[in-house]
Amino acid sequence: MVEILRFKKEDLLSYVIAYMSKLGVPEQDAEIVGDVLLSADIRGVDSHGLIRLASYYGNRLRNKNINPLTPIKILSETETTALIDGGNGCGQVASYKSMKIAIQKAKKSNVGVVTVKHSDHYGIAAYYAMMALEEDMIGISMTNSQPLVAPTYGRSAVLGTNPISVAVPSYKEYPYVLDMATSTVPIGRVKVFEKEGKKLPLGWAIDSDGNITDDPKKCQSGYVGALMPLGGSDIMRGYKGYGLALLVDILCGVLSGGSNLTEIGFPHEQRDADVGHFFMAININAFRPVIDFKNQMDHVIQMLKDAPKAPDHDRIYIAGEKEYDTEKYNMEHGIPIIAPVIEDLKNDGEKMGVPFNIKPVSSEVRDSLHS
Amino acid sequence: MVEILRFKKEDLLSYVIAYMSKLGVPEQDAEIVGDVLLSADIRGVDSHGLIRLASYYGNRLRNKNINPLTPIKILSETETTALIDGGNGCGQVASYKSMKIAIQKAKKSNVGVVTVKHSDHYGIAAYYAMMALEEDMIGISMTNSQPLVAPTYGRSAVLGTNPISVAVPSYKEYPYVLDMATSTVPIGRVKVFEKEGKKLPLGWAIDSDGNITDDPKKCQSGYVGALMPLGGSDIMRGYKGYGLALLVDILCGVLSGGSNLTEIGFPHEQRDADVGHFFMAININAFRPVIDFKNQMDHVIQMLKDAPKAPDHDRIYIAGEKEYDTEKYNMEHGIPIIAPVIEDLKNDGEKMGVPFNIKPVSSEVRDSLHS
Repeated sequence: MVEILRFKKEDLLSYVIAYMSKLGVPEQDAEIVGDVLLSADIRGVDSHGLIRLASYYGNRLRNKNINPLTPIKILSETETTALIDGGNGCGQVASYKSMKIAIQKAKKSNVGVVTVKHSDHYGIAAYYAMMALEEDMIGISMTNSQPLVAPTYGRSAVLGTNPISVAVPSYKEYPYVLDMATSTVPIGRVKVFEKEGKKLPLGWAIDSDGNITDDPKKCQSGYVGALMPLGGSDIMRGYKGYGLALLVDILCGVLSGGSNLTEIGFPHEQRDADVGHFFMAININAFRPVIDFKNQMDHVIQMLKDAPKAPDHDRIYIAGEKEYDTEKYNMEHGIPIIAPVIEDLKNDGEKMGVPFNIKPVSSEVRDSLHS
Repeated sequence: MVEILRFKKEDLLSYVIAYMSKLGVPEQDAEIVGDVLLSADIRGVDSHGLIRLASYYGNRLRNKNINPLTPIKILSETETTALIDGGNGCGQVASYKSMKIAIQKAKKSNVGVVTVKHSDHYGIAAYYAMMALEEDMIGISMTNSQPLVAPTYGRSAVLGTNPISVAVPSYKEYPYVLDMATSTVPIGRVKVFEKEGKKLPLGWAIDSDGNITDDPKKCQSGYVGALMPLGGSDIMRGYKGYGLALLVDILCGVLSGGSNLTEIGFPHEQRDADVGHFFMAININAFRPVIDFKNQMDHVIQMLKDAPKAPDHDRIYIAGEKEYDTEKYNMEHGIPIIAPVIEDLKNDGEKMGVPFNIKPVSSEVRDSLHS
């Protein structure tokens, strides 16, 4: 059982801004970080939300592992492309600005491609891809990350969970928003199974000898065992997930001249994360009238939803649909944060001189945040 | 046991040109079709090679389901983008020309994005992505295809196996060449298991009731059961493969204003296939010097190859590496074609007045082409 407190978005956002400002992050940048973090909680991806404010960003800013000023620099640029140095700043700020640049380029030249090196973790990949939606563009966002995933036929963590997000606008339906780690599951999912005393499905993880394991204790972030790429084993075509993970590392780390694979830092290490990102915006109107495109998106989505269902299922989902449903509910009822995260924020905020004293709009007790 | 005959590439190419010409395909176009088909056999993807000449392309040209003249038309165009009507012609010809256009645009504007509607099957996806390699560009190629794959929570074939290919140049190492169906396996793999009397791994296919099955007879192309998307079941994150399959359908079918999902024709149907394609070229030099990029690719590939191996494995592969090894061997020893395919060609060629009388350079008998 877990206690869930619900808050108004503006209250939490004000708090994040005050908290980050105290750590030297300019107010405008702090607002970006807050909006990215809270969008995760709003969309039900709480693993990437407020839970990381104190434990990840707060810690790393205090330890000077992140430059609070995010001094990004454009290293090379054309009408359609840019290579950006993230200045080892807040990944959200570098990414927000880089995606804006990709969109600007796509407004003028119909396509914009931006790659970023020397950045820090950017939160949920979908945030940046979705920035393209309001411009009637297709948005793409990727990042590499610390090594947690073994390549096919390997037995140690070499690749990040390297997510891919693509957002595509529709008309009456929710937009299509893919946001997927290229591993079968993220490490947090293994931890949940460990906590609940459950065995892992075979194909999620390997132990330190390289054998597939159902024991969550044998797959611990970066030093014991490894996650498996999407697909899992060879026979289940896990090498495709491995191929996608490597693609993300190439677009984020090689195209940018940044770091790759095991060169990327872990959050607990006292060093630059040195991750890279990749952003793209494609202007739909360059191909055909946006309204025709959006109507066809609705048609395709409707066809999928009308398709015959598997036993015990009465609904076929489109990528991002569950998150939109969750967002709708949470924007109405308040952003749900589990009580332990609020406790951490209260403790940390007190030490920092930024007391967390926001009143929740409601509270509830449930089996889990996602039940 | 199967008899394998090996031929010189130029001999087979001459034959394909003569064969296609007889069916009204202009010689230059026939050469493109031949080169794409043979590149599949050369790279060990024989399912997409010469085996399809008579059974697929020959039949469909004879039945007037493909326009032999491939009258492509540019419907809209900008400095960086193009929307092309494939004229219901040979998919290889429309695709070759469209990828050339993407590359031309990337030469001038550093990025080129081309989408194609109203085309026919284009063969191996990697062929077009790899065209970017010689230009020191990153190449991307996708196509939608006839419905064989069920969406997560669905029980019927709605999506194509919709492949994604990405090619990235390196320096001393083989280029990275991803070429993956977004289903766990293609339907041909299920047929191989059926022929060999083997059970399917769970996660490849569902039966007509929507239950996961290990019986290959319960998953037959488009009318019984369906393939599962990469990942397989929900718990194994098959919805990611489903999300990728839909992405391909959007970029190939919606961005182009073409057909989607079950609107796409099966090869045996007497109608336009109406598939769409998507091509992109990204000029590496716009971001950083190509030689630096290529050296870093080599470095990343080497790091992966040096990573610790799983039990019973002494080699970690990079996407495309096995195909390059196969190509190297086959270009030296001759292109391997199994005897039954040659028999078909002889029968078909005789009827067509294009007798197949090429002498193989060698022959061998093996358990299977890939053993």
